[in-house]
Amino acid sequence: MRSDEVILMKIVILGFGAVGQGVARVISLKREHLLDKYGLQLDIVAVADRSGGAVFDQGLDPELLLKTKNETGKLSQYPDFGVEGFSGLEILDKVEYDCLVEVTPTNIEDGEPALSHMLKALKDGKDVVTSNKGPLALSFTQLSEAAQETGANFKYEASVGGAMPIINLAHDTLAGSDIESVYGILNGTTNYILSRMAKEGSSYEQTLNEARELGIAETDPTQDVDGWDAACKIVILANSVLNLERTLKDVKVEGISQITPEAMALAKKEGYLIKLIGEASQDVLEVSPRLVKEGSPFAVEGTLNVATLKTDLAEDVTVVGKGAGSIETASAILSDLLNIWKAS
Amino acid sequence: MRSDEVILMKIVILGFGAVGQGVARVISLKREHLLDKYGLQLDIVAVADRSGGAVFDQGLDPELLLKTKNETGKLSQYPDFGVEGFSGLEILDKVEYDCLVEVTPTNIEDGEPALSHMLKALKDGKDVVTSNKGPLALSFTQLSEAAQETGANFKYEASVGGAMPIINLAHDTLAGSDIESVYGILNGTTNYILSRMAKEGSSYEQTLNEARELGIAETDPTQDVDGWDAACKIVILANSVLNLERTLKDVKVEGISQITPEAMALAKKEGYLIKLIGEASQDVLEVSPRLVKEGSPFAVEGTLNVATLKTDLAEDVTVVGKGAGSIETASAILSDLLNIWKAS
Repeated sequence: MRSDEVILMKIVILGFGAVGQGVARVISLKREHLLDKYGLQLDIVAVADRSGGAVFDQGLDPELLLKTKNETGKLSQYPDFGVEGFSGLEILDKVEYDCLVEVTPTNIEDGEPALSHMLKALKDGKDVVTSNKGPLALSFTQLSEAAQETGANFKYEASVGGAMPIINLAHDTLAGSDIESVYGILNGTTNYILSRMAKEGSSYEQTLNEARELGIAETDPTQDVDGWDAACKIVILANSVLNLERTLKDVKVEGISQITPEAMALAKKEGYLIKLIGEASQDVLEVSPRLVKEGSPFAVEGTLNVATLKTDLAEDVTVVGKGAGSIETASAILSDLLNIWKAS
Repeated sequence: MRSDEVILMKIVILGFGAVGQGVARVISLKREHLLDKYGLQLDIVAVADRSGGAVFDQGLDPELLLKTKNETGKLSQYPDFGVEGFSGLEILDKVEYDCLVEVTPTNIEDGEPALSHMLKALKDGKDVVTSNKGPLALSFTQLSEAAQETGANFKYEASVGGAMPIINLAHDTLAGSDIESVYGILNGTTNYILSRMAKEGSSYEQTLNEARELGIAETDPTQDVDGWDAACKIVILANSVLNLERTLKDVKVEGISQITPEAMALAKKEGYLIKLIGEASQDVLEVSPRLVKEGSPFAVEGTLNVATLKTDLAEDVTVVGKGAGSIETASAILSDLLNIWKAS
């Protein structure tokens, strides 16, 4: 932690939706702080999404990137340094950089284009930081091996639970314990719906509509309510925290659409709540509605995420945090970037 | 993480009560694992408590240390290598070692003998890992400065919340966010008493007696129920997580003995629970009974500890874990030892 010399980290951001824009904003917000505290300068040397891109080896202005995207919808309109017609792979080929921040939209069919982006970067020996669940849930082993072969850093704290720290917690903070299983509420939308149903006695359909109106559920909420978003996350935890080689097709998945107000009321009478729980251990890989005790850390309401690591020595360690949000998720990406810098 | 070469870390343990014995047990349990996974060998080269000590530069047998202490009450009875009449300071002077594990009994009057032990080790450039609240709550700045001067590592995750990871979580896992305040249930005994009072409607005195009978409260529970244990922990968090220079005398402390069943019932009617909360921020340093919402992460029951870090970017991040226990606390000490090794 010396601030007498400045280390420059050149970053390429692929994907410029909520998370990518959050990363630009966070880098802008923290610029002075990172320089003062760590002597670290994060330069965004290229950004691209489906609308085009911007490339400048001396560093793009994060605020101007945000302004350009928000006002014109097109990164290629960035003054002087806008580019069009380049794919993400071409940018990774042509630009000199240290770390890829991969935040393109999640695709749980084949993980693309993120999977190819990450594999190219890792094979070229570049560090990768991502919040992208798709490629990790489908091809974790392939990505880890690519990183190991070149010694590149591969970090993905933001892929599970946004700002809820769990992966680095297991790897670093709890290094002295072995993790035996992970158990968690990994999807904020379903937690919101189930919390409301428990509180109001309302039906699933009615509560889902309410969540849609509030913008908490998406117009097509399938990935959330059918359990696939949580399934991606539990696979990532199974691989990264438990060292199990699993993919999305190994998960037994059941969503929340069959839960009735009557079931809720019955559970409540006995001091329980119904939550959508993901569980991973040597023998179990499952997302399904389960009973949790009132007064336990799992009784949290709203869109919060919770996860418990069952350890051999420290017993249960639970973390609770915001599972989503542009800035929150970007903060986890920034933590990963900083930890790469610290370890270098 | 190369396992082709073995790194040896020589450890001195001062104090051999519940935590010290836990450390010996954990080192014994994890010996093979640490060698296989990290190529790290932890050798206990000296142990001492008020009963005497044992010193052997080739490494003492942790199981034999535990057996000797439990069967004879005296470490000096350790076969061949028992010693008598040496103070902790003399051992630190005479023995060649890398890291001091300081786990003598907590003293919140003057922090001794732990404070002198730690200062000597740090000034000699030796790493220090501790669970000892007293010296940290009284002399945090002095200890940190001593570590900075020689570049020694000074780690104390176990001093707050046993196996609940919070300090390293703030420093490492959440490196990308600034922490603005800490808020937590930092004492398991009082959380047990207050949870029972809320559930049973019983009086403070009656519940305290019940906790004493179960061994959850000590015969003299003053430090717990009057809030001093929590006060030590909130001071340590104020210093380590918020970079505020505070000591125990800066904390406004109120215990739980004045809480009545009537107050509990009133809170409950409105959807609240009463908990003993420690809070630290730029302007506040306090331990006192407060209302927390049912359904919030702070509504946990039993002897659990909970703490929330309010951050600038990741919003609230909360951790829940076992606040005490010999093996649990020792696991946090082992994590610190491993993180020293990883950073070396």
